[in-house]
Parts: sequence; structure tokens; C-alpha cells
Amino acid sequence: MAKMTPRTLSGFMELLPGPQQQMERIMEILRRTYSLYGFTPLDTPVIESSEVLLAKGGGETEKQIYRFQKGDADLALRFDLTVPLAKYVALHYNDLTFPFRRYQIGKVYRGERAQRGRFREFYQADIDIIGDGRLSIINEAEIPAIIYKTFSTLGLKRFQIRVNNRKILNGFYAMLGLTEKSGDIMRTVDKLDKIGPEKVKAILTGDLAVTPSDADEILKFIAISGGNDAVLSALEGYRGRNEIFDQGLEELNTVVRYLADFGVPAENFAVDLTIARGLDYYTGTVYETTLLDHPEIGSVCSGGRYDNLAEYYTDRQLPGAGISIGLTRLFYVLGEQGMLNPDLPTAPADVLILPMTEDLSAAISLATLLRENGIRSQLHCEEKKFKQKIAYADKLGIPYVIFLGEDEISSGVVACKDMATGEQTKLEPAATVYRIKAGLAEREKGTVIQE
Amino acid sequence: MAKMTPRTLSGFMELLPGPQQQMERIMEILRRTYSLYGFTPLDTPVIESSEVLLAKGGGETEKQIYRFQKGDADLALRFDLTVPLAKYVALHYNDLTFPFRRYQIGKVYRGERAQRGRFREFYQADIDIIGDGRLSIINEAEIPAIIYKTFSTLGLKRFQIRVNNRKILNGFYAMLGLTEKSGDIMRTVDKLDKIGPEKVKAILTGDLAVTPSDADEILKFIAISGGNDAVLSALEGYRGRNEIFDQGLEELNTVVRYLADFGVPAENFAVDLTIARGLDYYTGTVYETTLLDHPEIGSVCSGGRYDNLAEYYTDRQLPGAGISIGLTRLFYVLGEQGMLNPDLPTAPADVLILPMTEDLSAAISLATLLRENGIRSQLHCEEKKFKQKIAYADKLGIPYVIFLGEDEISSGVVACKDMATGEQTKLEPAATVYRIKAGLAEREKGTVIQE
Repeated sequence: MAKMTPRTLSGFMELLPGPQQQMERIMEILRRTYSLYGFTPLDTPVIESSEVLLAKGGGETEKQIYRFQKGDADLALRFDLTVPLAKYVALHYNDLTFPFRRYQIGKVYRGERAQRGRFREFYQADIDIIGDGRLSIINEAEIPAIIYKTFSTLGLKRFQIRVNNRKILNGFYAMLGLTEKSGDIMRTVDKLDKIGPEKVKAILTGDLAVTPSDADEILKFIAISGGNDAVLSALEGYRGRNEIFDQGLEELNTVVRYLADFGVPAENFAVDLTIARGLDYYTGTVYETTLLDHPEIGSVCSGGRYDNLAEYYTDRQLPGAGISIGLTRLFYVLGEQGMLNPDLPTAPADVLILPMTEDLSAAISLATLLRENGIRSQLHCEEKKFKQKIAYADKLGIPYVIFLGEDEISSGVVACKDMATGEQTKLEPAATVYRIKAGLAEREKGTVIQE
Repeated sequence: MAKMTPRTLSGFMELLPGPQQQMERIMEILRRTYSLYGFTPLDTPVIESSEVLLAKGGGETEKQIYRFQKGDADLALRFDLTVPLAKYVALHYNDLTFPFRRYQIGKVYRGERAQRGRFREFYQADIDIIGDGRLSIINEAEIPAIIYKTFSTLGLKRFQIRVNNRKILNGFYAMLGLTEKSGDIMRTVDKLDKIGPEKVKAILTGDLAVTPSDADEILKFIAISGGNDAVLSALEGYRGRNEIFDQGLEELNTVVRYLADFGVPAENFAVDLTIARGLDYYTGTVYETTLLDHPEIGSVCSGGRYDNLAEYYTDRQLPGAGISIGLTRLFYVLGEQGMLNPDLPTAPADVLILPMTEDLSAAISLATLLRENGIRSQLHCEEKKFKQKIAYADKLGIPYVIFLGEDEISSGVVACKDMATGEQTKLEPAATVYRIKAGLAEREKGTVIQE
């Protein structure tokens, strides 16, 4: 028969079993952490009607979307988890209780040009808190805690949650009478790191026709930096000139004020006035998270406060706050940087049982016992040489191998080899279970990511 | 602004938060159970190249498939998890260790006519064991144990794993010289329950031109029933007439022989000669699982032994054995039948904290403490009346509400109300944690499914 050469599409991550186990650990930590903060899991369809998914329309999104006909239906694959959430909340409004806190970890699709580290199918891991009409600032203050808990549980230490408030930016530009131009100005100022202040000023005063004194004001404002207290106290100098600004400063003060109570160490947090994010969408606190030793990766967890989640579907005012982790890309980068802990078990089983007798009853009963005790166990009954079976455990990194011959069966013991140390014990089944569980607990110590 | 009416496509399951929590429990049990038997998780892309996915071609599948162009690429959504597994094993052959045991729980897509309880996007939960060249019968004997453990952990008691062996059927038809017609005969015999033996015989002797005496032989064979021992001993009467038959009988004997050692109670297992399944694909043991009180649902977990997983992609002989649970449909049916346990918690949080002071430090610190102790906690800081906040906890089924006012803060205690009993305690934080955890453990007792 002619064979089709098997392949996986470019831009689609398909992991080997070892890395997949690491990915599963990460996902489990995200699920558990998000749950701790009172978020409920959701799972929405991957396919939606195109008119629903593209209600907002326009932009880069539409070009990248996977869209197709099936019968008469015009369908599309979701390109993020926010639009499906907006649809969900508008559609099921009467069945939900607000504030509505949900997390979702799911695949999304964007037909980007394939390049190294860019994916067309990738996981996003999102949380959002949706209010009905109003939403307290405390939700925005809580989000750094969730980011901190998530990344520190994964094992990261050297990361920084950078926070700003869009009202401060909008209020500041309103003070200068530059509200109309604020979008263009922010995009220009965003290039500060790359092109330097001279060139930024040249563009501001040239292309954007900002007066030289306003340009200086902008550069002075954007240069405000230092510790949180220093930045907040510099911002106090602008108070009283614009209502929106003052409101933003109040909010930022609230976010910073409760950090310690939320368990976020000062070194993992910074007020950063250069962060703007999603110019049209966010209206209050905005977040970015960077790995201090890998600034080139950019933000690994971003989000913010928005005023109107579902405006394309409903007249109801549904403000929210949320963050998103681009999980597939993060996992790829962590792998590239060698930051995935190789010492955590990734084997499919904890124990490989090698029966040494014709009758398999004793071996099978032992496997059943181990499984009842929560030990992941595999019987190896294939017609292979003993050496090959040991090599099988070795290759897969299975930590324990049990031999069960006539001698062991008749004396009611189990021969169990620790593959790492080579140490072999002959103990009763219950004692063997105890030893294995203690060993596994030891092996589980350590975090998924290591710096 | 004109609004787009939000909707979810028909044939796509989208659960409300409560049922979604039940679904998550079920998925977690599947993951944990499959892991106990040494299966490693895999996650393959939802989209594959059409030529890869349809290498086998033809049949109902191709009509139902979601297939589309993106740029120059001819793409399709996976319609099961078996073809992607075949591709995966052929593609990554050199990086895998055999026997290769994997589980996958993932969404698949079939554009079936939408009707009640039929889904176009649905989860399958599969396990497969793939051998390189050969695969021991013990793997086939182990599968009923996995099915039993899975369903009994979910909480089902009244179910039956029905097992047959294709070699017995093929060998039997070969004895009669009816190998050529065996497919048609099996399809006819499959209608026995519906149309009765008279009509089956009429079709056999009419359309299929089987002699009346062979037709009687077939009806006699297919009528063999009773306990496992009775069926096996009736089959012994056919031994020695066909090599394939004898081999199948040996295999079936092995499967039955180790059932008790594998922990499968006799009442959950039955040898059933009427089961054939996937006529082209399966070659040895085949499985179906039925709910005794709901035969109308059909099989909720099916599978079997096959000789050639990846024949469209590679010349290598890769025999395997596997089963699949149609999870979305099963969940739907369990819900319809009222079999999902309503007493297990489905709230997004275990505790709702109501701060009664302007300064939120104490309330936030308490939330942080609870979370550090693994208690899912939500702060309710919205501008709502006290009564509304209690109603919020009530609606969501959050089991504990904590009030934190000046009095409690100054005396270092926490007022905690058990929403089910109305009982309210004032205890120190550590004692409150202890009480809540004990209460939660109590609430977690019981299984997801109840009969």
C-alpha cells in the first residue's frame, strides 16, 4: 500500500510524552491557583458563528481568523477567549450571578505567518471578573496577587508585575489638552526604549504637532520612575488638575496599598507609567508581567480593567477586569531557555512490574494493590528479554521496577529496585507501597520551572 | 449601537458554571484513573492537513468532516482521536518507547445532523496501548479493569462490560466456509434483538444464500449465553475445528481468567458473543459497556484490539488495544437521567468573605491566609447591601460566609457562618481554617454520578 507521509502542521505544537507531562503540571497549577481565588472553570466551543465572533469586526484579527463554510453556515474558530466570554455572559446573563468570576484554559487559533516560537494553535489561560453595572476597584487590586501566586507556584522568582492605570494617562493628556492625540502620543512614547528621548520629541513636535513645552512635559511625565512610593509621590504633584487623573491616582493608590495584605512581595511589583496596553479596550488598571532575566520575551501575563465586555451583544453595562497568559508560547520559551525542571518525574508510571512466572495472578494482584494505593503502575508482560524490560523502565524514567518470581511469591515479599540508586529491597507489599510513596513524594519536591 | 444577538451553535455543548464543575470532576477522575494504569497524557492539534487526516478515505467520515482551505492549505478538524494517534506514533516513532500507552481527552468534530443529544463538537476520552510488532494479550485482559475502575470511581454500580473476541467469530464463520459472507452475516445477526430469529434466518437463507443448516448453526451459536463459565464451556464444543477460533478462545479464556486479580467483580463483566464492533478494524478482543438501567443509551465505552494502527502512514506493524468514552454524550445523558449528584459542591468558592470595615487590610489578609491553606476564597467588596451579599453566596451555593467587622478584628476572631446549617462560629483564624476544611472534606464525600 502507498503510504502517506505523516506530518503535523507548522505552527501547531505537538509535544512528546515527557514535555507533555510538564505541560500538564503547569496546566494543573493554573487550574488550582485560579480556583483558589474563586474563579469557576468554563469551556466554550472552539467554533462559533462568524457573525457572532466578528461582531466587533475589522482589524488584524479578521485577516488571521480561520473562517469557513459548512453547509449554509459561516463558521470561525475562536481567536481569543474574551469574545466567547462576552458572548457567554450576554447569552446566559439571566443564569449567571454577578460579579461573575471565571477562568478558561483553551486553544485559540490565529493564522499568523508561521515563524519560530509563533503558534497558530495555542493555549490561552484567562481569568476575568465581570460585574453587572459596577465593579469594585478591589478586584483590580487582587489581580497582582493572582499573578504572583500563579508564577511563584510555577517556580518563578525573578519576575515583575508592572502596573499602570489608563485613567492616569488619559487624565494627564487631558490636562495638556491633548486628548485627541493621546493615542498617537502613547504609540510614539512607547518607542522610547528603542529610539531615545530626542527622536521621540522630534516626532511629537513634528508629525504630531505637539508644542515643544508640552513635549517636554510628556517626556518628564513618562520619565517618572523609581520605587512605588517615589512614583506615587511624583504623581501627587499632578493632583487637582483633572478629575479622571485624580480618580486614576486613587485607584492606583488602592492597588498598591493592599499589595502586602494580598501577599505580593514588593520586589515582584512595580508601578510603571510606560505601560498602556490595548488602547481602545482598557479603561483602568493595566498589567504586564516580565521575566527579569528574559526581557526579550516581553510580557508573559497581561490584562487590565475594561468598562464594557459585551457591548456588541447587549446594552447592559458589564465592566470587568482580567488577565491572560499565552501558555503555549510561554511553555515554548521556557523550554528554549532550559527553565523546565528536568528532575520532576515525567514517566508514564511510577512502577513497572516484571512478572517472572507463567501464571500472572500474583503480579496482576500486586498491580491492583498498588493502583488502589494511588501508585501509577504498569505490568510489562511482553515477550522481551529481562534486560530489554529494564531498559524500557530506564528509557521512560520509571523510578521503580518490581520483580515477582516464585521465591518472592512463596515468601510473600516483593523485590523492588530504585532505578536511580540501584538499591533493591525485598519487603512485604504494604511496606513496599510505603517505601514507594515516600520516594515519590521526595521526587515531587521542586517546582516545574527553575531559574 | 446595533447589537448582534449572541448565540451558541446548535450541536455545541456550552455548560453553565454548575454543570461545568461536574464535568471538570469527571474529567479529573478520567485523567487520574487512566494515569493509574500507566498511560501518559497526549495533546495533539485539533487541525490537521486533510490529506493526512483522510489518508484512509471514504465512508461516512468524509461527509461529516469539517474541512476548509486556509491560504493554500487544505485543512480539516479531527473527527476522532485514533487517526491523530496513528499519525503521532508513525511520525514520532523513533522518539517513543513501546509498548506506548497514552490517554487523550480532547474535542473532536463531526458535522452530523443536529438532533437532541447529538453533538458536532464533543469530547472523546481515549486510551490506547500500542506495541511495536507484537502486543501481549495481557493488555487486552487489563482493559476491563480500566473500564471498571473508571466507571466505579465515577460512582456507577449497575454497568456491565461486555466482551467478545473477533477471532472467535471469524473462526466460527470460517468453520462453515462462510468467511466471505461473514461481514454481511454479522450485520444481519446484529438485528436479532430487533427483528427476531425467524426474520434473521429468512435474510440469511434468502439475501445471503446461506444454507438452512448453516443458518441454524449460526443462530445456535449466537444464542450461546449465560454466565461466563457457561459461555466458555459451550465454546469448548467448537474447539479443534479452526485455528483462528481456537486462538480466540485461548485469548478469551485469558481475559476471563485474570478478571478477579484485576479487581473486576463478576457481576460487572459478561462474555457476549453478539458483540462484533468495527468490522474492518478490530481483530481480537472487543468491548462494549452498557448501563443496566439504561440500555437505550447503547454502549458508553467501547473499543478493542486491532492489528495495524498506522498502516496508512508506515510499513511498521503497530498492533494496539484501546477504548473510547464519548464523554460529551455521556455527560448529556447522565444529566437527562438526573444521575449527576447534586450534593457535591459546584460553587466557584468555598468561602465568601464580607468585609464590614472601611479598611480592607484584615479581610484581605484573611483571604490570603485561607488561600494559603488551600481554601478557595472570594472577597465580596462590591457596593451592595448585606442581604444581597448573603443572597449571592446562597445563589452560588458557597458553603461558608465570613463576616469581619471591627469587633472581630480587635478580638482576633472570625465570624463564620455555615450556609447549610445556619450555624455561626466565632473562632480564631487557624481554628476557622480547621473547621472549614473538615466541613469541605465532608461535603466532598460521595461520587459524581449516583444511581
